[in-house]
Amino acid sequence: MKKIIMYDSTLRDGAQAQGISFTVQDKLKIVDRLDKLGIDYIEAGNPGSNPKDLEFFERMKKTKLNNAKLIAFGSTRRAKINVAEDSNIMSLLKVDTPAVAIFGKSWDFHVSDVLKTTLEENLRMIGDTVAFFKSKGKEVVFDAEHFFDGYKANPEYALETLKAAYDAGADCLCLCDTNGGSFPLDIYEITSKVVKMFSNTMIGIHCHNDNGMAVANSIMAVNAGARQVQGTMNGIGERCGNANLCTIIPNLQIKLDYKCIPDEKLRELTPAARFISEVANIIFDERSPYVGGNAFAHKGGMHIDAVYKNPVSFEHINPELVGNSRRILMSEVSGRSTILQKINEVDPTLTKDSPETKLIIDKLKELEFEGYQFEGAESSFELVIRKILGKYKPSFELKDFKVIVSQTTGETVDSSAMIKINVDNQDEITAAEGDGPVNALDNAVRKALERFYPQIREMKLTDFKVRVLDSEAGTAAKVRVLIESTDGKDVWTTIGVSTDIIEASWKALVDSIEYKLSK
Amino acid sequence: MKKIIMYDSTLRDGAQAQGISFTVQDKLKIVDRLDKLGIDYIEAGNPGSNPKDLEFFERMKKTKLNNAKLIAFGSTRRAKINVAEDSNIMSLLKVDTPAVAIFGKSWDFHVSDVLKTTLEENLRMIGDTVAFFKSKGKEVVFDAEHFFDGYKANPEYALETLKAAYDAGADCLCLCDTNGGSFPLDIYEITSKVVKMFSNTMIGIHCHNDNGMAVANSIMAVNAGARQVQGTMNGIGERCGNANLCTIIPNLQIKLDYKCIPDEKLRELTPAARFISEVANIIFDERSPYVGGNAFAHKGGMHIDAVYKNPVSFEHINPELVGNSRRILMSEVSGRSTILQKINEVDPTLTKDSPETKLIIDKLKELEFEGYQFEGAESSFELVIRKILGKYKPSFELKDFKVIVSQTTGETVDSSAMIKINVDNQDEITAAEGDGPVNALDNAVRKALERFYPQIREMKLTDFKVRVLDSEAGTAAKVRVLIESTDGKDVWTTIGVSTDIIEASWKALVDSIEYKLSK
Repeated sequence: MKKIIMYDSTLRDGAQAQGISFTVQDKLKIVDRLDKLGIDYIEAGNPGSNPKDLEFFERMKKTKLNNAKLIAFGSTRRAKINVAEDSNIMSLLKVDTPAVAIFGKSWDFHVSDVLKTTLEENLRMIGDTVAFFKSKGKEVVFDAEHFFDGYKANPEYALETLKAAYDAGADCLCLCDTNGGSFPLDIYEITSKVVKMFSNTMIGIHCHNDNGMAVANSIMAVNAGARQVQGTMNGIGERCGNANLCTIIPNLQIKLDYKCIPDEKLRELTPAARFISEVANIIFDERSPYVGGNAFAHKGGMHIDAVYKNPVSFEHINPELVGNSRRILMSEVSGRSTILQKINEVDPTLTKDSPETKLIIDKLKELEFEGYQFEGAESSFELVIRKILGKYKPSFELKDFKVIVSQTTGETVDSSAMIKINVDNQDEITAAEGDGPVNALDNAVRKALERFYPQIREMKLTDFKVRVLDSEAGTAAKVRVLIESTDGKDVWTTIGVSTDIIEASWKALVDSIEYKLSK
Repeated sequence: MKKIIMYDSTLRDGAQAQGISFTVQDKLKIVDRLDKLGIDYIEAGNPGSNPKDLEFFERMKKTKLNNAKLIAFGSTRRAKINVAEDSNIMSLLKVDTPAVAIFGKSWDFHVSDVLKTTLEENLRMIGDTVAFFKSKGKEVVFDAEHFFDGYKANPEYALETLKAAYDAGADCLCLCDTNGGSFPLDIYEITSKVVKMFSNTMIGIHCHNDNGMAVANSIMAVNAGARQVQGTMNGIGERCGNANLCTIIPNLQIKLDYKCIPDEKLRELTPAARFISEVANIIFDERSPYVGGNAFAHKGGMHIDAVYKNPVSFEHINPELVGNSRRILMSEVSGRSTILQKINEVDPTLTKDSPETKLIIDKLKELEFEGYQFEGAESSFELVIRKILGKYKPSFELKDFKVIVSQTTGETVDSSAMIKINVDNQDEITAAEGDGPVNALDNAVRKALERFYPQIREMKLTDFKVRVLDSEAGTAAKVRVLIESTDGKDVWTTIGVSTDIIEASWKALVDSIEYKLSK
């Protein structure tokens, strides 16, 4: 199995993404996780253009990595000055990483119209900068910015820029599709030529997703002989994002017989992808290949049946290989066998012919008719099963609640809730305010329960979704509320349906609390 | 320019996606939009497996499409029965579409292990079913399910399944990468062979995104000679989704010199993508190539400088070609010219340099920052313009309202609203009940206004949508409410945003009423 070097730029190119802003703490956490995942290079900042990164690199001097090499990113020297006089270059040197990535222009138009210098001077800027860092004992990756667009415009010049870096001793020549507009066949053909021309140097690939094919382009470059792949976790990055390493790694390692990270680390991929999404504070895309929550989710009855007969029928890999798992979505189109599997998680002795199974299926149909949908709300479904099997003991009883929302001209809306509950024959009445009526009710019920169940403090709501079902009914429409909760260890989702949004939210909230307290 | 047939399956394969559940109304709206966009085929349902689709097709019988052909989807007949005895086939015939798509098994393993019939019988099932629909005068697309996996396992048999459909008169043989696990080079090579073998028939491609390369694979198939591309808007679909037509269309038409939709329709692509995302009630992925809000957003200072010097430097196409626009820093979702067009509807004398235009754009940015989005809520936007231009006179003033939701154990939730308004110095106070707090408030305000504005009775709400914006904030999250109203002649949509769902609904409700009364 040929090794492909994995080069992560989540903390540098990923940080260019709209809405991303890493603190130093965030960066340290992500570096640690990437190192544990077995990534080879971690490009973690641009000390010249981002002074905040200096503190991070300072902290990293005291941190030992087990596997990865830390790499700092910067540009070639400015035109017509000595390398050692360029303050960006000196910042890059000062952070003291074992490796640096130097980007330079490979597209003649960028040299003349953006840098506004001569083609010759640009070659000298590349050569001088690479030579300078080599003389300081650094490993140097040369990022040939806009290489593919440059090659299409002026192939000779684009290749000369690579040669300038090569002659100065660069350890890797990385071909960048900076605008992300290239197609797989072009990438394949051009990379093949470069690999042949620089056969004793490592060639890298750095793709963006503006055509929607950053992953495919990266794979095509590997097919053509590239041996280093640059990308980011979850594909985060400017505009449409960078090549997604969470897709590239399993594509190469499980299906194309390359080696990217240690085999035993592949199972860490799904949790690592989610972790980094959490730290970056972005919504994780559940449709992500390999690592997404929907990547192995099955809904259509026919597909589910087939997957039970043989998983290969509708799954391109075994989800456990990447630390993911199969999900069978509960829906009107799910077959009996799907439901039975869920029932058996609660009571393994029941079969498809047990009378309880029929009761549960009937209840499921009735609830779906009312607008419930248990795909993605498996915890509520588990509670339905428990109730029918007599394995459910409510943790509290609602006596009553009252929610009041009021507005007076020119003032903000006030929402408050009053609630009375009973636990073991003891009443508790309390009230709370909130951002909106549901939040007020949520705050009130937790406050009332804390006395009896202090563990309720461990739990928090992480997602709240509202779907209007029969939207033609206007404001009288039925709504479905989904609530996702976590206690730091587990994540569970519950559902409520009603024409009254407060009632629907209340049902989902009660299920969420009951699920937590039954654990 | 060679024409590539665009075949949209948003309403069929897209509806298999987790969390997607289209109403008949939703489907009618999407069909209309796809037809206007210039899509050639709209695959809109599976009448055999989904009885809900029957009503949709019934409604479609009375609807004339200007450009697209409607297509219904179903499987080959079941094993060992006559075609005419298969109830699914008869459902498919009954919906009376000009074209049908028939999927059949092309992977020998699926025939033996999932269908559990013989390879010969499967070929007869394909041939009989295609021949049956041809004899009824239908255009027939044959979807060769799992074609690429099947070809890799048993190329002879996979090709025989195509031949069975071809011999029976199929108008298009569509090669499906059903598990989404194929690579670009494989797709290219296998499609090339099929194109050569069936040179006088149209070959189609249907890709899934489990490898993260559904778009690239579709393009590679076109490179290899496929002339029909199946996909969905925004790539919605089972697991990791289908090939995204919003990416494929500009890739082919702007960059590869193929023709997919009429040139003048390309600019409709971005609004159409957002519209369909709204109707499907899914969060629009702003990172989407071409049509996403971030696709031409620039954050890095160096990039912004370069883009000002020459947009080509960091933009792979001119965003206006697809109806998108460049975004610098914060937000400018709609281009200036789009906004100016809206402004000119209210005051035709204003130009892009008028100070009022700047005020409106600034206000728009501010509101977008708060979570407003005026795509699909043009009536609220018109009111914003009127307010800034001093062309807005409120029809009523809110003094105050109070909404009360209460529940006592075992009883249903009660919602009621009390409201006091003032019109021309006359107060009116009233109260109403409703299905939920928003409906109660809606009923109360109309009741109060009727005395002053009897025309309010002509108006009714036809749609009500709720989107949670920052769902990680749990029940304290900000929500966006969209309300669609009609008075029998016109339809208009308004928006409200707040952390309080009642307040957000109130804002949208007031805009809707004001819009009606200003007509």
